[in-house]
Amino acid sequence: MGIQKKTRKTLMVFAGRVNSDLSHEVARLLGTRPIPTQVFDFANGEIFVRYEESVRGCDAFVIQSHAAPINEAIMEQLIMVDALKRASAKRISVVLPFYGYARQDKKHRGREPISARLMADLFKTAGANRLMAVDLHTAQIQGFFDGPVDHLMALPILSDYVAEKYSGQRLAVVSPDAGRIKVAEQWSRRLGGAPLAFIHKTRDITRPNESVANRVVGEVAGRLCILVDDMIDTAGTIVKAADALLAEGASGVVVAATHAIFSDPAVERLVACGATEVIVTNTLPIAPEKRFDKLTVLSIGPLIAEAIRAVFEDGSVTSLFGGQA
Amino acid sequence: MGIQKKTRKTLMVFAGRVNSDLSHEVARLLGTRPIPTQVFDFANGEIFVRYEESVRGCDAFVIQSHAAPINEAIMEQLIMVDALKRASAKRISVVLPFYGYARQDKKHRGREPISARLMADLFKTAGANRLMAVDLHTAQIQGFFDGPVDHLMALPILSDYVAEKYSGQRLAVVSPDAGRIKVAEQWSRRLGGAPLAFIHKTRDITRPNESVANRVVGEVAGRLCILVDDMIDTAGTIVKAADALLAEGASGVVVAATHAIFSDPAVERLVACGATEVIVTNTLPIAPEKRFDKLTVLSIGPLIAEAIRAVFEDGSVTSLFGGQA
Amino acid sequence: MGIQKKTRKTLMVFAGRVNSDLSHEVARLLGTRPIPTQVFDFANGEIFVRYEESVRGCDAFVIQSHAAPINEAIMEQLIMVDALKRASAKRISVVLPFYGYARQDKKHRGREPISARLMADLFKTAGANRLMAVDLHTAQIQGFFDGPVDHLMALPILSDYVAEKYSGQRLAVVSPDAGRIKVAEQWSRRLGGAPLAFIHKTRDITRPNESVANRVVGEVAGRLCILVDDMIDTAGTIVKAADALLAEGASGVVVAATHAIFSDPAVERLVACGATEVIVTNTLPIAPEKRFDKLTVLSIGPLIAEAIRAVFEDGSVTSLFGGQA
Amino acid sequence: MGIQKKTRKTLMVFAGRVNSDLSHEVARLLGTRPIPTQVFDFANGEIFVRYEESVRGCDAFVIQSHAAPINEAIMEQLIMVDALKRASAKRISVVLPFYGYARQDKKHRGREPISARLMADLFKTAGANRLMAVDLHTAQIQGFFDGPVDHLMALPILSDYVAEKYSGQRLAVVSPDAGRIKVAEQWSRRLGGAPLAFIHKTRDITRPNESVANRVVGEVAGRLCILVDDMIDTAGTIVKAADALLAEGASGVVVAATHAIFSDPAVERLVACGATEVIVTNTLPIAPEKRFDKLTVLSIGPLIAEAIRAVFEDGSVTSLFGGQA
Amino acid sequence: MGIQKKTRKTLMVFAGRVNSDLSHEVARLLGTRPIPTQVFDFANGEIFVRYEESVRGCDAFVIQSHAAPINEAIMEQLIMVDALKRASAKRISVVLPFYGYARQDKKHRGREPISARLMADLFKTAGANRLMAVDLHTAQIQGFFDGPVDHLMALPILSDYVAEKYSGQRLAVVSPDAGRIKVAEQWSRRLGGAPLAFIHKTRDITRPNESVANRVVGEVAGRLCILVDDMIDTAGTIVKAADALLAEGASGVVVAATHAIFSDPAVERLVACGATEVIVTNTLPIAPEKRFDKLTVLSIGPLIAEAIRAVFEDGSVTSLFGGQA
Amino acid sequence: MGIQKKTRKTLMVFAGRVNSDLSHEVARLLGTRPIPTQVFDFANGEIFVRYEESVRGCDAFVIQSHAAPINEAIMEQLIMVDALKRASAKRISVVLPFYGYARQDKKHRGREPISARLMADLFKTAGANRLMAVDLHTAQIQGFFDGPVDHLMALPILSDYVAEKYSGQRLAVVSPDAGRIKVAEQWSRRLGGAPLAFIHKTRDITRPNESVANRVVGEVAGRLCILVDDMIDTAGTIVKAADALLAEGASGVVVAATHAIFSDPAVERLVACGATEVIVTNTLPIAPEKRFDKLTVLSIGPLIAEAIRAVFEDGSVTSLFGGQA
Repeated sequence: MGIQKKTRKTLMVFAGRVNSDLSHEVARLLGTRPIPTQVFDFANGEIFVRYEESVRGCDAFVIQSHAAPINEAIMEQLIMVDALKRASAKRISVVLPFYGYARQDKKHRGREPISARLMADLFKTAGANRLMAVDLHTAQIQGFFDGPVDHLMALPILSDYVAEKYSGQRLAVVSPDAGRIKVAEQWSRRLGGAPLAFIHKTRDITRPNESVANRVVGEVAGRLCILVDDMIDTAGTIVKAADALLAEGASGVVVAATHAIFSDPAVERLVACGATEVIVTNTLPIAPEKRFDKLTVLSIGPLIAEAIRAVFEDGSVTSLFGGQA
Repeated sequence: MGIQKKTRKTLMVFAGRVNSDLSHEVARLLGTRPIPTQVFDFANGEIFVRYEESVRGCDAFVIQSHAAPINEAIMEQLIMVDALKRASAKRISVVLPFYGYARQDKKHRGREPISARLMADLFKTAGANRLMAVDLHTAQIQGFFDGPVDHLMALPILSDYVAEKYSGQRLAVVSPDAGRIKVAEQWSRRLGGAPLAFIHKTRDITRPNESVANRVVGEVAGRLCILVDDMIDTAGTIVKAADALLAEGASGVVVAATHAIFSDPAVERLVACGATEVIVTNTLPIAPEKRFDKLTVLSIGPLIAEAIRAVFEDGSVTSLFGGQA
Repeated sequence: MGIQKKTRKTLMVFAGRVNSDLSHEVARLLGTRPIPTQVFDFANGEIFVRYEESVRGCDAFVIQSHAAPINEAIMEQLIMVDALKRASAKRISVVLPFYGYARQDKKHRGREPISARLMADLFKTAGANRLMAVDLHTAQIQGFFDGPVDHLMALPILSDYVAEKYSGQRLAVVSPDAGRIKVAEQWSRRLGGAPLAFIHKTRDITRPNESVANRVVGEVAGRLCILVDDMIDTAGTIVKAADALLAEGASGVVVAATHAIFSDPAVERLVACGATEVIVTNTLPIAPEKRFDKLTVLSIGPLIAEAIRAVFEDGSVTSLFGGQA
Repeated sequence: MGIQKKTRKTLMVFAGRVNSDLSHEVARLLGTRPIPTQVFDFANGEIFVRYEESVRGCDAFVIQSHAAPINEAIMEQLIMVDALKRASAKRISVVLPFYGYARQDKKHRGREPISARLMADLFKTAGANRLMAVDLHTAQIQGFFDGPVDHLMALPILSDYVAEKYSGQRLAVVSPDAGRIKVAEQWSRRLGGAPLAFIHKTRDITRPNESVANRVVGEVAGRLCILVDDMIDTAGTIVKAADALLAEGASGVVVAATHAIFSDPAVERLVACGATEVIVTNTLPIAPEKRFDKLTVLSIGPLIAEAIRAVFEDGSVTSLFGGQA
Repeated sequence: MGIQKKTRKTLMVFAGRVNSDLSHEVARLLGTRPIPTQVFDFANGEIFVRYEESVRGCDAFVIQSHAAPINEAIMEQLIMVDALKRASAKRISVVLPFYGYARQDKKHRGREPISARLMADLFKTAGANRLMAVDLHTAQIQGFFDGPVDHLMALPILSDYVAEKYSGQRLAVVSPDAGRIKVAEQWSRRLGGAPLAFIHKTRDITRPNESVANRVVGEVAGRLCILVDDMIDTAGTIVKAADALLAEGASGVVVAATHAIFSDPAVERLVACGATEVIVTNTLPIAPEKRFDKLTVLSIGPLIAEAIRAVFEDGSVTSLFGGQA
Repeated sequence: MGIQKKTRKTLMVFAGRVNSDLSHEVARLLGTRPIPTQVFDFANGEIFVRYEESVRGCDAFVIQSHAAPINEAIMEQLIMVDALKRASAKRISVVLPFYGYARQDKKHRGREPISARLMADLFKTAGANRLMAVDLHTAQIQGFFDGPVDHLMALPILSDYVAEKYSGQRLAVVSPDAGRIKVAEQWSRRLGGAPLAFIHKTRDITRPNESVANRVVGEVAGRLCILVDDMIDTAGTIVKAADALLAEGASGVVVAATHAIFSDPAVERLVACGATEVIVTNTLPIAPEKRFDKLTVLSIGPLIAEAIRAVFEDGSVTSLFGGQA
């Protein structure tokens, strides 16, 4: 008894207002367009969302980069997820090219929040079934979400570009921070075993009241240093690292990072510093006025599109990108 | 066996960065000060919070008005709650003089969010055990939170002021909107049974392509109309209502509302309109440049302080304010 | 590796013992019958449920009106949902032509329950994934359930009937209560902009110790008043309103409401009052002895059947009924 | 910083409308009275509850027996718990002298509910932190609730009475059902090792189309049989068991059970049967017209009162009653 | 808009390291093989799991018997479930031929755990959507899991074997324990109404300081006694029961049980005791050194395979095995 | 109305069977003893727990190190927590001197579990309200638990010992792994700014088919190297690192780590290697046969005892140990 029907599933892409170019690129690569959506702010800043088509039963992918104003970006995405849940979407995957608050992934001292976990919980509460993110600040953030997380790696995109452009040069891979050498090791492996170095921030004991010094640990003299990080925010650390490398005799410095946050005065600093190229992806939108001559922007769109397709078709994300999905 | 100890409890007030004057007033009325707290924005807008004293075991009241930039205000409060939860606060009450997104309390059409419910769930997820709010847009929002809600009423504060100042005049109570006449009825009861009216927005059928007209339903001629609402956002509705009342022969119009959102161009409109006084409370901060001659601001601080004390001491909030707590 | 199979889905209708006529009508309109189910009371009143066919993997719609004895009706539906969950139904939609306890949607005073929220939570706990309801007492109840709610509107059914039957007459739309004028506004819009009025219950100050009077706010003289409400329980309010309208010179009164609770002495009062027609739907069963001459019962069955089909087929409920689904 | 206060706790007893005599007895034994509470039915049967005093911060014990109309009794208690949760009770213990739906504690066949688990979940959802129950149908029901359960045993009360009254006689302990012999074993232990027997319902193979026979397994000839069970519903089983025992040569039969459900025609059957005494407790109310000569009712009140006191004072319930609390 | 695709579903079997023979038998009967999986212990005993194929969207059945070292078996299965959840399995059914900790299904005295409920909750937390188990120690354990439970019965397998092998003999069915006579009743029914008996452990009052005696309740003289239980752990109870039966004049004893835990010194005892055959299933692995001449092992594999197929295809498990699924 | 009582709270310590010396030391430092508890294994390995005193209302601290057999240790602690929850403990803090499965804190590749998160969830499900742990493998694990986590640091204990014993020597701090240099930086800071180095595992490109080489990055020649890590499992990495340091001209090597897992062949390797001292704490039990001459074991007991006291008394853990609690 009952009424039978063959089932089909429908992939739908939803685009928040942040980094809408990337969302459209992803949708186009998938062969579709973002679902028409009304999104606007009320006079007092409250965000309103309404989908202009039925989304019942769909396999929803809600793309939003967490760029400034970042809290508005996050809230907008939460509200988009709530609207999908209440409109009977079958499965909701939140796609975060850049995961906001990822750096607050532990209590550095007592009485602090763990905002990266809070974000995972907020998305879960709003109705997200899955998360997809690119280059999380620490891989442990995967464990903050109670459900599947597809963790995509921009490293192949960036390192292939570097490997091709700077092939034949004597390279070194440098981490600007002791805590992120693991990533530099991955770079080293993809660049044919280039030697590693890192910058150790230290207080010079012989000169009290003086601020922190940047000591290079490892051999960099005469080498083109690929200074790698997951994100560039104000660029303070990275620029000081570049200077330290050149001071140690590096033959040149190229900066590579996935997330171009570029908070002021990042652009000014990067333009002024001794690095000859700054390579990033478009996980975050980069305003025209933030673009500068030696900046190279690689698109993360194909990676996200392929991952979405694999998720929709129950294929393996890992096999596609060597990622940790 | 084991180690015994008498228990005590400690009330602590925590103040978000929005409407900090009100938070300090509340704390002062309670005989304490907000707990010293570091709150600042990182370069990319991510909010950081840290309490500068131990909060273990405290009975925490986290006060934040949801004023513009409203999503930042809400996220800040969520992060404050998360930090309290992780720092072993015993009970966390979120105090919302103005509850953001309260107007999105139902789906007006399909495929919309119910953001007011989402907010309740987000606070629950972050770690809130209780909510306290003033004049919720609809009383049903109490039911959105899975736990105790103390719903405070500004009505006595506002209506006592009106009753005293305009005693002896022939009053009418007017709702600017058909959906909020219940509140007007409460005003009427507190103003000695003053007659009721409301504004009915209607499309004039005889003049197609013409916009909505405001028809007054009820008798207002020769009366001083107390035009009451829960909030004034852009003041469009309220100002048109005031005009309609004067056009119907009202002897004057006084506007009373709890929440002074005052989004542009509210102030301009209110100054220009025919109302002779605009009475609000300080549930939301009112910038100096938004204050104008005929504006009266009554403090909600004593009401909140008394309610917090009653909650802390397990007394009855209801008995204090005749509220629905 | 593994075993593959194409998937199909099966819609199944389950009928509680209350208002079984409506459930069968809905199933018949869908082209099926309710799944054979054993439901009976043990000697001490405990309800037993067992489905007589496999329900594994089905898309279940469990229809039950919350009529008296209402707590038994609700408990029976909860137990039906539990049995479906434990028998591996894939998705469970609870269909509530009349949602019990909807009027207790807020705390009117302190120390009251919010039973309408409790009901939503009980159904969630039992295993419901979705709710479908007709004309909720307040639309905010949608937000009480943590999941999709399809909110169907009987208004088009009722107002089309009225528009056709009373076309050409001078109509007014009247709300018997200040709190429900919003609904009257929707009626007015569907009846070509008929003027609005409402009944204001007030205490006559000049005659102390006297009870509440019903004052008509708005113009009704010489008009056929369509007195609209969501439900008729004991009919006290509606009958007093009809009297007041006639006293104010209305040319006639027609009562229209979605839910015919008809608790005693509703029928007696309606028969005796000055209204010439009482129009309701069959969201609740109306016993033969509760039917009377001037009563018109319109069927809600087609609306529910269409909505179920749309949900099953992932179509838009909104587009069908202009509802808020 | 903050405001300090010594803490105290307050035990409050809340009484549903069922078996209110027992609730008052329990409160009196504790030295208090049930909190004044408004409870009534609306015209359509919806239950309304309101506490007439502040209950903030209290340690609440909500007593309700699940007697017919049982679904109303349960719903009333759920609503009472919801109101307590929303009114900031600190801890809510649900006291169930008789736990409704306890017999539906497993699926006997496919597609049945497990209503006993559902009840535990419903109380949890409404806000209950703890359960207290007397003689659960199976002890496993303790595991249905996600939290502490105090399981009280009426056995000492019943068996002490029997031991004293029938001391010196040759006793046997008989279970009317193969599934409940464990309880009979406990009786046997408390009655000095009296021999055990049970009734085995069997279909007589030699006489097809004939119904079930009751065979006595164990020696009962010449002994006074104490026929023990947890509850007497329609008394069909117990009366047939009594007959079978007398037919096997028992010198007499005394029936003892904790819960006197007494659904029709229990009383008639018990009066007519060969048992000389029927001993029960007042976990369920026994209407005057259901009382008969050979019925003895022992009060469960002191047991519940002591258990509540122990819970309130963090003492051991187990030590008091040898129970499984 | 969006991208459409027909859906299919894929059944995948996952095998923990315990009782891998049974898992492979089940997979083979289904026409597949367990998904290749890396499972090993790190040096400190932590278990590592990784699936070597994509499992996205699969309908997963994770088979693990809870044999010694039992806590390792359970933890391994929990980790397998976690890995499936995070790898986007669509539905996860935990298959427990033997459910560990089932005997701790209630608090026997105060301050004990209810570990059988805890296990159900741990599996739920790890990500299990469904449970399938064979002959739970008590059927109430079905209610410990918040979701569908398929409860399979080995009784037909065991009793068919007995009925055929011992047809023509005068049988009795004996329960070694008063608490499990219900199961013996089911055996009796399947063996043509063979008479029932049970062993009553009692303290002989006439010989103080002496230990427990095993009294047979029921007629067994001259009959071949089928001594039935759900599990044989150390075989102490069962062997004493066999002795008691022979002492009472039984013509012979055959032991039948579903779960062959066979903790030391079970084998030694069984070999030595007077029973002529011991019949068990392979729900637990039986090491070669634990096999002995009069032991008969029947396979549970076909039952589990059929049940998995029925679950995957949304068929009725009940109809296949007369079970309580 | 109601019965009032002053409240007190009682700290109780509960000790699992693993590392019971440490638990007793902690209890003794607090001035109490662990609550008498029955814990034993049934014949088939199932663990049984029962507390021999009332624990109602207590503030429970359940101490268990996750040493081999590690899954048994974890399961025992889960069962202890379940028993406390069901026995009405007021608050349950799980104390983990060593947190099992901490190294599985992310998916290294697809289709792996995140067992460290799973453990946090299992403890939450069993009933834990709080966690306390020493030197988590990564600080992000704090965010895996949904509640307060007190993260204690053994660093001061270890580094104070080193600073005193090796004062006056030219030190270097070395991380055996690129991923843990952050910890080495903390050591460096506490040792007066000693220079940093780390071991970079690399594949020597010039010698294919050859295994991984350990390259020292940083200056170590002529320095006493303090080789620091959070745990020593099989000691393979640490011993190779020690060799590499000596090969690079280090004047000596001292190994310091918090957790002495010492899986085989750790002791053999450590004894044989060139390090002159191996300093650990007793977060894990170290069997007598695993102790060797150059091993120094510092007690973590005082740190844990102070932290428990601070938690019980609502004091600041942070202030005591400079920790991240």
